[in-house]
Amino acid sequence: MIDKAIAYINEHADANLERLKDLLRIPSISTDPTRKGDIRAGAEWVHRAFAGCGIEAEIVETGGHPCVLADTGPAKGGGPTVLIYGHYDVQPTGDESLWDSPAFEPTVRDGKLFARGSADDKGQALTHILAAEAWMKTVKATPIRVKFVIEGEEEIGSPKLGPVIAKFKDRLACDYVALSDTPKFDKKTPAITYGTKGMVYKEIVVTGPKQNLHSGSFGGVITNPGNALAAIVTSLRDKNNRVTIPGFYDRVRDITDSERRRMKALPFDDNEFLTSMGAPALTGEEGYSTIERRWCRPTLDVNGLYGGYVGEGASTVIPAKVMGKVSMRIVPDQTPEEISAAFDKAVRAAVPPGVSVEILTHNTCPAYVAPLDSPGMQAVERAVEAGFGTKPVYLREGGSLPILALFKETLGADSLMPGFCMPDCNAHGPNEYFGVDDFHNGTRAAAHLLHELAQLG
Amino acid sequence: MIDKAIAYINEHADANLERLKDLLRIPSISTDPTRKGDIRAGAEWVHRAFAGCGIEAEIVETGGHPCVLADTGPAKGGGPTVLIYGHYDVQPTGDESLWDSPAFEPTVRDGKLFARGSADDKGQALTHILAAEAWMKTVKATPIRVKFVIEGEEEIGSPKLGPVIAKFKDRLACDYVALSDTPKFDKKTPAITYGTKGMVYKEIVVTGPKQNLHSGSFGGVITNPGNALAAIVTSLRDKNNRVTIPGFYDRVRDITDSERRRMKALPFDDNEFLTSMGAPALTGEEGYSTIERRWCRPTLDVNGLYGGYVGEGASTVIPAKVMGKVSMRIVPDQTPEEISAAFDKAVRAAVPPGVSVEILTHNTCPAYVAPLDSPGMQAVERAVEAGFGTKPVYLREGGSLPILALFKETLGADSLMPGFCMPDCNAHGPNEYFGVDDFHNGTRAAAHLLHELAQLG
Repeated sequence: MIDKAIAYINEHADANLERLKDLLRIPSISTDPTRKGDIRAGAEWVHRAFAGCGIEAEIVETGGHPCVLADTGPAKGGGPTVLIYGHYDVQPTGDESLWDSPAFEPTVRDGKLFARGSADDKGQALTHILAAEAWMKTVKATPIRVKFVIEGEEEIGSPKLGPVIAKFKDRLACDYVALSDTPKFDKKTPAITYGTKGMVYKEIVVTGPKQNLHSGSFGGVITNPGNALAAIVTSLRDKNNRVTIPGFYDRVRDITDSERRRMKALPFDDNEFLTSMGAPALTGEEGYSTIERRWCRPTLDVNGLYGGYVGEGASTVIPAKVMGKVSMRIVPDQTPEEISAAFDKAVRAAVPPGVSVEILTHNTCPAYVAPLDSPGMQAVERAVEAGFGTKPVYLREGGSLPILALFKETLGADSLMPGFCMPDCNAHGPNEYFGVDDFHNGTRAAAHLLHELAQLG
Repeated sequence: MIDKAIAYINEHADANLERLKDLLRIPSISTDPTRKGDIRAGAEWVHRAFAGCGIEAEIVETGGHPCVLADTGPAKGGGPTVLIYGHYDVQPTGDESLWDSPAFEPTVRDGKLFARGSADDKGQALTHILAAEAWMKTVKATPIRVKFVIEGEEEIGSPKLGPVIAKFKDRLACDYVALSDTPKFDKKTPAITYGTKGMVYKEIVVTGPKQNLHSGSFGGVITNPGNALAAIVTSLRDKNNRVTIPGFYDRVRDITDSERRRMKALPFDDNEFLTSMGAPALTGEEGYSTIERRWCRPTLDVNGLYGGYVGEGASTVIPAKVMGKVSMRIVPDQTPEEISAAFDKAVRAAVPPGVSVEILTHNTCPAYVAPLDSPGMQAVERAVEAGFGTKPVYLREGGSLPILALFKETLGADSLMPGFCMPDCNAHGPNEYFGVDDFHNGTRAAAHLLHELAQLG
């Protein structure tokens, strides 16, 4: 049966690529309020793709951009149910003059398909739709029950996805979630991402006098909000790059020996990585490798500073108000609630006399790590190997994907995340691309995934 | 003789006020490149004022805005020579909608003459010109030799004044400099300012990666320039508001007992001062009063912070570059050169690994304190008391006046600084004003000053 699906995919390679191009021509930029019509066109395109191969689908109104739900219905052979997640919205193009070909005119050069959304996530999401289609077109059914939730608001933080999942909790019930919105490890090596960090994003606003004051006439007699903010921020970390917020590390899960071995085995070059960032040196928490720091250790970073005079030259003001944006990436089993409260408490304890401080919380989400030893994880490994001809490696991610914890909490399902695009695919930058071979290999891997999950019985 | 000059001033009070209004109608904004013609008109107005009473004067080209030099020539009775400093340029109006009457249409309300430059410094400078005129018109001579340097670039930092003074060093030779560009202590109490702080203004630019990075993917493995800047700034002061730069206090002159007594005797209310600033509390270096901190103790203040994401909400970047503007107010006998070097050294010592730092120096000038026991200082005290009917108090100033050190260095002369305007005269803000009585009292005090200096023989 899998052979028929794969044969279908191989025969339709060119047609599949044309269909991806067709989808990529829709400028479904979710951040842009003038693109509402294009967003809807994106949802309709996806809806038609399901309808065209006999998968029942519905465009669900969310109050924001619409969401496409689809369901093959119960499978004959039983087996687990998988919910495929993807998104049809894309990032803005940014400065269009930096694109070598127009962002919404998909163009193949050197085996790469260039277009906004080619990798993130239209191209990667489409591999799963085309894989299901291959099963439907050949054997009239998928080997397991497959459900889809393809949303239109990922690039604006998925504000309506939680309510949609809660509302359609029963319809979306599943054993696993699968999504391809992460990259391969390198050109040769496909990857499965199994964990992301959580986030607690804060803004500290320090206020002193009611207006900017002359630093001559008023220096030395009141607390300068700029100095105060610097002191507060500095108090949150020590010189060894450890966060000093009391209790911060209490729940941090140790890296297991097997995970550590896996990470060590990755062909990762510190110097190459440093060069790519252009920073003077790698630094970080002692006792951990660069990869361990990126994937498994919680961090605290200044994201923005503003206050007082910021123009050219000199102006001798004591700023009335300054602000610092500070975010923490958290790891299992830290919780956003506890870390948020601990941060606030530590900041308040560090406020010097003579200023008042307001703490805003902009964003929080939990970390997520999938079990590496689940049958589903083993199935996805076999599927990716079958699709790419290369065994995948396992990755974690320093970034955050709030939807993973959402799926786990609401549906009780762990996420399987095979990544098909390149790490340098310019997901949010100019000249985003998806390797044409990666697209076809990914589609084959997605077809194999349904087969492999079916073998779990 | 002094009686005749005073009588002349009294008789010409209305005319003098009209002449001040006439000068104030010229929008001689030195920061505004489109106002060059008005600036020159200001210089010509001042030049005519001297010529009209028989004082030899010259408009000197500086390469910037012109400077008016004037000289009564040698006095018969000998006595010290005084050089009167003033400036005919003014600050911009700022938001004109905040003015109750137009900035360049002088208007008297409630005994106050409102106009840009009324206090700073056209009105105060004119008191000295009108005082000399009163002497010239009545007894055909001033009792001592009086020289003037009235510049047109004070509000842009007097960039050409140093070269002018150096070039005309012999012509400007004097025993004292006198200037009225500082305020009274309060409504009832005229003041003599005898000291200003110096300044060393720095900008610290901290650079990490070559571009902003994703704080998820790259957090924890490089030094965040924002955290680094906070740590550097924080390292420069301790929790007791003492500057920690090695050697910073080495040359700080102790406050003398008599100075301390004088400051203690001033009717200064900490609570009222705090309320005027609108800050939560007064803070500062232990062991010193609010006035001592403002006038006599060196300070270090953040003037500006900028870097990373500063918009609404959250953006998870590690900023590639952040900057902090930090200035120090210095006191005798700290030198700008030593403090500047000590600051740079302390900053470099505080730079954490993994970032590079550039230090810019925007501004430096030395502190200045005049001897309180000089004959000239006693003369100005008597003159102000005679002009205002109230004994003046002695003030120092937390701000900086680079010209004072310039006069001392180039001409060897100490500065006498009787202040006639109100402390809340809105010198750089909307609705700048000069009390009409203060204007006339100041003119009388200026006439008395020449008389009192003549008595020194």
